[in-house]
Amino acid sequence: MTTNFYAPPAQIRGDRVVLPDGEARHARSVLRAETGDEIAVVDGEGGWYRVRLDHVGDGQVVGHIVDARREVGEPDVAMTVGLGLLTKRSRLETFVEKAVELGVRRLVPLRTRHTEPTEVRADRLRRVMVAALKQCRRSRLPELTAPQSLDALLEATTADVRFLCHGGEHPPLLDALDGPAPDDVLALVGPEGGFAPGEVAAATAAGCIPVSLGPRRLRAETAGLAAINAVMLYDQHRRAP
Amino acid sequence: MTTNFYAPPAQIRGDRVVLPDGEARHARSVLRAETGDEIAVVDGEGGWYRVRLDHVGDGQVVGHIVDARREVGEPDVAMTVGLGLLTKRSRLETFVEKAVELGVRRLVPLRTRHTEPTEVRADRLRRVMVAALKQCRRSRLPELTAPQSLDALLEATTADVRFLCHGGEHPPLLDALDGPAPDDVLALVGPEGGFAPGEVAAATAAGCIPVSLGPRRLRAETAGLAAINAVMLYDQHRRAP
Repeated sequence: MTTNFYAPPAQIRGDRVVLPDGEARHARSVLRAETGDEIAVVDGEGGWYRVRLDHVGDGQVVGHIVDARREVGEPDVAMTVGLGLLTKRSRLETFVEKAVELGVRRLVPLRTRHTEPTEVRADRLRRVMVAALKQCRRSRLPELTAPQSLDALLEATTADVRFLCHGGEHPPLLDALDGPAPDDVLALVGPEGGFAPGEVAAATAAGCIPVSLGPRRLRAETAGLAAINAVMLYDQHRRAP
Repeated sequence: MTTNFYAPPAQIRGDRVVLPDGEARHARSVLRAETGDEIAVVDGEGGWYRVRLDHVGDGQVVGHIVDARREVGEPDVAMTVGLGLLTKRSRLETFVEKAVELGVRRLVPLRTRHTEPTEVRADRLRRVMVAALKQCRRSRLPELTAPQSLDALLEATTADVRFLCHGGEHPPLLDALDGPAPDDVLALVGPEGGFAPGEVAAATAAGCIPVSLGPRRLRAETAGLAAINAVMLYDQHRRAP
C-alpha cells in the first residue's frame, strides 16, 4: 500500500521530475527506491505522473515521466467548506485531514460571533493536508485560506448550490442537493456555539439553504465532514452510469 | 450549549434519579447546579428525561422526572459497523467518538488477515462513547463488542442490508441503499491493508454487496464514518415528509 509522492509544478520541467528533499529522503530511506523503479507523483494541481527513477543519490532523486494523467482521484464537484474556527488544534487537524480525503476543494476557517480568536497554524495544517493528499491518492491539494469573516466568504462565493448546516428543524441535506448535479457547492458550518441570528440571516440572504444533518447535535468538525461526504456520495451516485 | 447527563437505568427508580458520582461532580462544580434547576438525563438505553433537582449536596445530586420520552436523537435504522482493528489509538478514538455522533448502533472491532494483534482499551473507548452520547444528545449508548473474527460477525448478523466498503470498481454506496428503507444495516470496513480475498469472498457469500465510497483511498476510520453518515443521511432523506 504505497502512497503517492508529491512534487509541486516547480519540481517538474518537461518530463523531468526532481523530488523535493523530504520526498527524496522518504523514497531513499523508507522505501529504499532504486534506479529503474517506478513511482506515482502528484503535483497538487491536478497533475498525476508515473515516473521512472533515473538517479537515486544521497542528495537527489530524479526521474522522468512515463505516463501523465489529469485530475486523478478528483471529484467533479468543487466544494468549499466555511467552518467556524475550532479552538482545539487536534480537532482542526482531524477535520483537515479527513476533508482532504473526502474530496473538499477549499477550506475557509471562519471568524464568527461565537468563535474565539485563535491562531491557525497554517504550516502545520498544510503538512497534514499534503500527507492526506498523498495517502488518499488524489492529485489536487485543496486550498486552505486565511481565516476570514462570513461576510467576506459570502461576498466572494460563486457557488451554484449553497447551504448552511444549522441546528433546528430544516429539510435534510440531501433534499437541498436534489436537482441537477452542481459544479460548485458551498457549505457553511457553525462553530460550537452555532451561528448568531444575524449570521444566519446574512447567509440565507446570500442564497444559503438551511439544512439539517439529522437529529443529533454534531460537533463542528463532524458536521463539516458529514456535509462533504454527503455532497461527494450524492454526486458519485447521480453520475454513476 | 449544555450537554445531557448520563444515568444508567440502575440510577433511576420510579421517577427518582440519582446522578452517578462523576455526573454529580460535573453538575455541582462545573455547572454550579442548584436545587430547582432542570437538566436533561439520558439512560443510554433509549430513555430521555427532564429532571428537576431536589437535592444538590457534596455527596449526591438527586432529582425527579418531570418529563419522559423515548429514543430521542435516535435514528430509525439500526446500523452495525465491523471495522478492521486500527493500530493507532487516537484514530480509533476519533472513529468511535464520531460514530456515536453520527448515529451508529453497534461497533464491532474485527480481527482480520491484515490487522495487527492489538489490544482494545474498552474502558477508555467507553468513556469516549459516553461523552459523545451526552454531547450529541442521543439517548442510546451504542454497543462496543469485543474484537471478533469476520466469520463470527457474518454468522451472527441479522441485517437486511449488508455491504462491504472495498477499494476498486464497485457501485456507489448510495446505489446499494436504493430500495425500501432498511431497518438493520451492516457495513464492513477493512483495515489499512484491506480485506484479504478470502474475506471478501466470505462476506459476499454472506450477502454483503461490495460498494465504492468514491475514487479516493480513504483511511479505514474515514471510510467507516463515511458509511455511517451515508446510511443516516439517506435514511433521513427518504423518511422526510
